[in-house]
Order: sequence, then structure tokens, then C-alpha cells
Amino acid sequence: MDVQGRREIRELSYPDSLRLLATVRFGRVVFTRHTRPMIRPVNHLVDGDQLIIYANLNLVPVPTGRQVVAYEADTISHATQLGWCVILTGTAEPIDEPLELRRYEQLIDPWLPGSRSRLVRIEPDLITGIELVQRW
Amino acid sequence: MDVQGRREIRELSYPDSLRLLATVRFGRVVFTRHTRPMIRPVNHLVDGDQLIIYANLNLVPVPTGRQVVAYEADTISHATQLGWCVILTGTAEPIDEPLELRRYEQLIDPWLPGSRSRLVRIEPDLITGIELVQRW
Repeated sequence: MDVQGRREIRELSYPDSLRLLATVRFGRVVFTRHTRPMIRPVNHLVDGDQLIIYANLNLVPVPTGRQVVAYEADTISHATQLGWCVILTGTAEPIDEPLELRRYEQLIDPWLPGSRSRLVRIEPDLITGIELVQRW
Repeated sequence: MDVQGRREIRELSYPDSLRLLATVRFGRVVFTRHTRPMIRPVNHLVDGDQLIIYANLNLVPVPTGRQVVAYEADTISHATQLGWCVILTGTAEPIDEPLELRRYEQLIDPWLPGSRSRLVRIEPDLITGIELVQRW
């Protein structure tokens, strides 16, 4: 079966990318540590156009100020080779405001490994997405 | 249903991580470009303890020499919250040897977007993995 011949790649708009990102509960945060690129799977929450994640103190350095990060989430299936993929770049900063912390702690149910000690907000400056769809 | 309470996180050995990586055909390459962290989904092939990927010239800068990269692949399911996740860091360099190129071109069937103009070899210096398994 020639899966390749039946697949089509479509670009997603900013609103569609953000909407899809909000339908899933984890992605992969990408950052630079000591000039080395790092990646960690983390649970997320989309709040408006912001992304909220738990930063693992052992793995994700909690930024003292703003830090440039990338984030990726997808539903691309190893079996069907179909799904969507959203990539954003933005700036990350720790959340310190008690009311915000309490709200997000109630909303995010983290099930991936990693410490829950700090919540981090990512403000996207670029969001792009693609969709791998079946062509009929 | 309390999914959280029934899940267990296990660390994977180096051989198990490499073996699992070889069972799937795509992952996410992570690199630094102009000091910004970048991530792109790409198709891969595991050859011994090396990872072979197609580098997209527009997205993944083909290294003039060796370049530090990270790579992640997983089967973590959005639905069941189970699966494995393997992360490696290593050095990437373009493959130029004609016989190697021909061999890898026949072995990798890339179906993710991106140019097919260069093949890149990643030599891992660290591979770690976890497994999210059901606890009975």
C-alpha cells in the first residue's frame, strides 16, 4: 500500500495551530542549556494565546528572566503517518503571582515525569503548523 | 477513572532505548540556530548506534562540521498517556560518501515534509529513555 501517494501536507493558520495545541495535554519544550540544545516532554495548558507548562527544575532551567524556547506538539501517528504538528517559538518566564499559580495548578494535571515545583508561561512570537491528511 | 494512579514510570537502559528508537520511523531533531532553539520532525533510521536523518536545508542547517544536536522520539499516547520516550544528544555531520548515501537513500523512506537534499548522521553521546507503563 503506497501511503506516500495518498498523503497531503497542508499548512495550518495561526488560529488553527493554537486551537489544535489546546486539544492535547502534552508537548516538547526545547531550550538551550550551556549552549547545548535540550528537549523534554511536558504537560501543557493553553490559556488564551499563552502556553503554561510545569518546568522541571532538574531539567528545564527556570529562567531568571525571559528565555527563548521552542515548543512542539503533534498527533502524528507512527502507524498511519497522519496527524498534525504545531511548532512555536517564544519567551518563557516563571509564574510568581499566587492567584495565577493557584488557578493553573488546578487546571494542569501533570502526568509526565518531572518536578512540579515551578510553573512557566511561554508567550509565543511565532506559531506554525502542518497537517498530514489523507488524500481521497 | 484515575489514570494517574495506575501509571508507573520506568527508566530504560541504553540498549533498550536504542532498540525502541529503531522501531519507529520519525522523531524530532533539536538544534540551535542563531542562538535560538529549533525543533523539526524528521524521518530517521537507526544504523548500529548511529541515527541517520534527512536534514532539511531550509530548516536544519547542514553542519559544515560537527554540530551538537538533541533528538527525541516517543510513542506516548494522548489518549492512554502510556508509551515510551527516548532522548539523545550527540553530534551531527553531513554524509558525503557516495556508497553510504546510496545505501541510506534506499533505506529511509521519508514522508515528513522537508527537503531530501542532504543526509545527516548523528553520533549519540548520551541516550536516555523512560517508559510510562500501566501498573496492575
